Amino acid sequence: MKFVRFEVENKWSYGILKNDIVHPVQGSIYHDFTESEAAYRLDEVKLLAPCEPSKILCVGLNYSDHAAEVGLTIPKWPVIFMKPPTTVIGPEENIIYPSSFVKRLDFEAELAVVIKKKARYVAEDKALEFVLGYTCGNDITARNLQPKEGQWTVSKSFDTFMPLGPVIVSDLGWDNLDIQCIHNGMVKQSSNTRNLIWGVPFLVSYLSQVMTLLPGDVIITGTPSGISSMEPGDRVSVSITGIGELRNTVAKQKERTQ
Amino acid sequence: MKFVRFEVENKWSYGILKNDIVHPVQGSIYHDFTESEAAYRLDEVKLLAPCEPSKILCVGLNYSDHAAEVGLTIPKWPVIFMKPPTTVIGPEENIIYPSSFVKRLDFEAELAVVIKKKARYVAEDKALEFVLGYTCGNDITARNLQPKEGQWTVSKSFDTFMPLGPVIVSDLGWDNLDIQCIHNGMVKQSSNTRNLIWGVPFLVSYLSQVMTLLPGDVIITGTPSGISSMEPGDRVSVSITGIGELRNTVAKQKERTQ
Repeated sequence: MKFVRFEVENKWSYGILKNDIVHPVQGSIYHDFTESEAAYRLDEVKLLAPCEPSKILCVGLNYSDHAAEVGLTIPKWPVIFMKPPTTVIGPEENIIYPSSFVKRLDFEAELAVVIKKKARYVAEDKALEFVLGYTCGNDITARNLQPKEGQWTVSKSFDTFMPLGPVIVSDLGWDNLDIQCIHNGMVKQSSNTRNLIWGVPFLVSYLSQVMTLLPGDVIITGTPSGISSMEPGDRVSVSITGIGELRNTVAKQKERTQ
Repeated sequence: MKFVRFEVENKWSYGILKNDIVHPVQGSIYHDFTESEAAYRLDEVKLLAPCEPSKILCVGLNYSDHAAEVGLTIPKWPVIFMKPPTTVIGPEENIIYPSSFVKRLDFEAELAVVIKKKARYVAEDKALEFVLGYTCGNDITARNLQPKEGQWTVSKSFDTFMPLGPVIVSDLGWDNLDIQCIHNGMVKQSSNTRNLIWGVPFLVSYLSQVMTLLPGDVIITGTPSGISSMEPGDRVSVSITGIGELRNTVAKQKERTQ
C-alpha cells in the first residue's frame, strides 16, 4: 500500500495512492482508517512530506563505502544523531541554502523508515511489525559546519534540510532496494540497501532500547558513497526501487530579521 | 507569572500558580488565555513538566568551569545537541537508570528557556520577546555512552532523561540566578547564570538563524562544574533562584521486550 499526505483545496489530508489516484482516508494511517468517497488525480493535489515525525533519528556511516569516503572508520555501534521536525519538507519543496552560514551544502540519499506504532524494548525479530513502511529521505548537510570530532546537530538542522517522500510504501522488503541520488540529471550516488552495515530490524530494536518510538517517527538509515555539493538552482532527487523519486530544488535564502 | 501544567481528576491542564493555588487556564499559555473559575491547592494536583517541547536544544560547555572539568576547551561557537521529546518528565517522576547500557548516570543542572512564540531570524536585542520564561532542567547523561569525539545523542536520549519544572517563571531576569544541583541532600553543583559563556539572547538569536523555534520549545543552557554520578534510589534536585526546586528520584529499569 502507498500512503501519502497531500494538500487539495487548502486542506491537508492523509491518503492512499492507487494507480495515480489519491483516495483520502478518514482516521489514522497508523491505526484504523477508511477510505472516503472523494478521489483526486495525482496532478490535482500537492504531495506533502508523507508523515509528521515527532523525532527524526539518523544513522551515520551505515554504508561502508561512505565511511571510507569521509575518512572515518566504521564504529562498533551505529552513530546516531537527530534532526528536528522543523527540517521536514515534501516533494518539490525548496531546500533553502543558508548562505550566511553555509559554504558547502551536500545531498545524502537515504532510505527512511516510518514507525507504525509505539515501540519500546522491541526484539529484533519483531521489529518489522513496528514499521509502517519506507520512503525516500535526503539528509541535507552543511558540510562545512559538520566537525569531524564535534556535534553534527547544527550542520543537519536548518529548516528544509529533511526532504521526505513522495510516498510511504508498506509492502516492501528493506534489504534489496536500489538507491540513487541524481544531481542536475547526473547519477551521483548509486548503491543498494543490501550494503547497509546495520539493517532496519537492528536499528528499530536498538533505538527502541534507548527511547520510545512513536507513530510517524522516522529513522533515516545512512547514505552510500558519492556525496557532493549543491548550489542554488540545482535539482536533486533521491530514487529508491519500489518507492519512487523525491525531487527538490535548492533555492537561495531570503533572510529577514524579526 | 508562574505557569504550570498539572493533572487533577485524571485531566491534564495548563494553569497559573499564585500563592500555592493553581488556577487552570482556558486557551494557550503561549497566546491568549483566561483563568477558569476552578482553583486547586498545590497539594491537590500532580505537577507535570510545564511545557511539551517539539524540540529540546541543548548547549554543551557553556560554563567555563564545566568545560575544564570534562577536559574540553571552550569552542568558538556553542556546541549544540538535541534530546528527543520522549525524554521529558516532570517533578517527582522517576529517572529510569537503563542498567543494560549504562554504567554511569550523571545529573547536570541547567537553566531551561521556554520559547513563547515562533522565532526565526531573531536579532539578539529582540530575543527575549520570544521567551515565555524559565524553568529548571536536569540534562541526565549516560556518561559512559558519551564519546569525547563522537555524537552525544544516545547518551542523552533515553526516556526520562529530561526532567523539567516545577514552574515556568516569566518575570525573571536570566543573567543573575543562583543554580544548584543537590544530590542526596548534598550540594554538588553551585554556580550562577552570570557565568554563562553564551547568554540567553545570543542562544535564542543564534538557534533561530538555523531553525524555526516554536512555542513550548526548550533550550537548556549548559551545566556548571560538579557533575557526578547517581545510583538507583538516589534523590536529585535542581534549584534555581526565583523558580524553585525540581526534584526527582532515580529508579531501576523494569525492562520488557515487546
